[in-house]
Amino acid sequence: MDTNHTPREAAEHHGYHADKSALERRLKRIEGQVRGVAKMVDDDKYCIDILTQISAINAALHKVSVQLIDDHIGHCVVDAAKSSIEQGDPSIVQDKIAEATAAISRLVR
Amino acid sequence: MDTNHTPREAAEHHGYHADKSALERRLKRIEGQVRGVAKMVDDDKYCIDILTQISAINAALHKVSVQLIDDHIGHCVVDAAKSSIEQGDPSIVQDKIAEATAAISRLVR
Amino acid sequence: MDTNHTPREAAEHHGYHADKSALERRLKRIEGQVRGVAKMVDDDKYCIDILTQISAINAALHKVSVQLIDDHIGHCVVDAAKSSIEQGDPSIVQDKIAEATAAISRLVR
Amino acid sequence: MDTNHTPREAAEHHGYHADKSALERRLKRIEGQVRGVAKMVDDDKYCIDILTQISAINAALHKVSVQLIDDHIGHCVVDAAKSSIEQGDPSIVQDKIAEATAAISRLVR
Repeated sequence: MDTNHTPREAAEHHGYHADKSALERRLKRIEGQVRGVAKMVDDDKYCIDILTQISAINAALHKVSVQLIDDHIGHCVVDAAKSSIEQGDPSIVQDKIAEATAAISRLVR
Repeated sequence: MDTNHTPREAAEHHGYHADKSALERRLKRIEGQVRGVAKMVDDDKYCIDILTQISAINAALHKVSVQLIDDHIGHCVVDAAKSSIEQGDPSIVQDKIAEATAAISRLVR
Repeated sequence: MDTNHTPREAAEHHGYHADKSALERRLKRIEGQVRGVAKMVDDDKYCIDILTQISAINAALHKVSVQLIDDHIGHCVVDAAKSSIEQGDPSIVQDKIAEATAAISRLVR
Repeated sequence: MDTNHTPREAAEHHGYHADKSALERRLKRIEGQVRGVAKMVDDDKYCIDILTQISAINAALHKVSVQLIDDHIGHCVVDAAKSSIEQGDPSIVQDKIAEATAAISRLVR
């Protein structure tokens, strides 16, 4: 039955589910921005203008990352915290947090 | 009684407590690195060597940030998740996560 | 005659000309990586795996930026330095450098 | 005689010379900010407030880096461009640019 899934299964409906189409629209736009930069190179546009476009892509990717981190903490980590309480096993949430921190660390650099 | 503090009070023993002295040693070292850069400027050292030192400071600060984020999620956010469950009020953990994500976003830039 | 163009015209053959096809291949690959991330979202892949892919895109974009900066300094800024010497007008190179630094500053954040 | 130094010696009066005291004041302030963060840890301040302070330090260091890069391009790289022209040896400026780009690359990450 549908309501009977374990916390693990629940976690698999990732946090970004609710905003999935917004996220996909954003990524579609970023894909277009990257294609635009390739076209600027092909058209011999001025380097500084190309760099400005790349900064815009960085900023757009940054927003996607932050949304994913927010969703991940709000869903996967919080679900893991619940499981830890229910099962009396702190390692469940600790593992999730270590994983999230590693991902954040790669992005913060 | 000691065991009777509210979740809010518990959360005030921040996550970095356990590693407090390690964190303080790191910051002491970063302070010395910044002083070293000031001395390099005063001694007219080569700009590229100064920039290399600044990159090292950035990396050291990055480690401090990631440790604080890790501790914050592991303690404040997880405590808030517990409070949300106990009090049946999801807004407690949601507020903590919004705050953490905003801090991460400022660092990821 | 071909050898008679002014420094300004020479500068318009931007620095990345020589590596144009390498740059375009890199951007093509980044475009594919962004499309891959959109597909991961559509397929409900795990948030952390998506974040790892975004870190890879950031790193790839970073390489493109650094190549463009290198080419820009090596061509546009150096050409402007020559023009400044030839025309006895330091503002030519100063303007180019101010522009380059502003672009670098947006990327360093 | 003082006016007789070679381009190499001239380059050794690094670009940041003019702004040396401004740079030193900025670094003094950053040193104080780092000490402030150590005190916040010692006083058990809230992790998010500490992270906010670290973001401010990152931003201040970023300004110092950008100023150093600007000065470096404006002086060392431009001087090297002049030497390359005078001595008919493009490798002088090419080496300086490779070095500058490597430093920028470490900061952009």
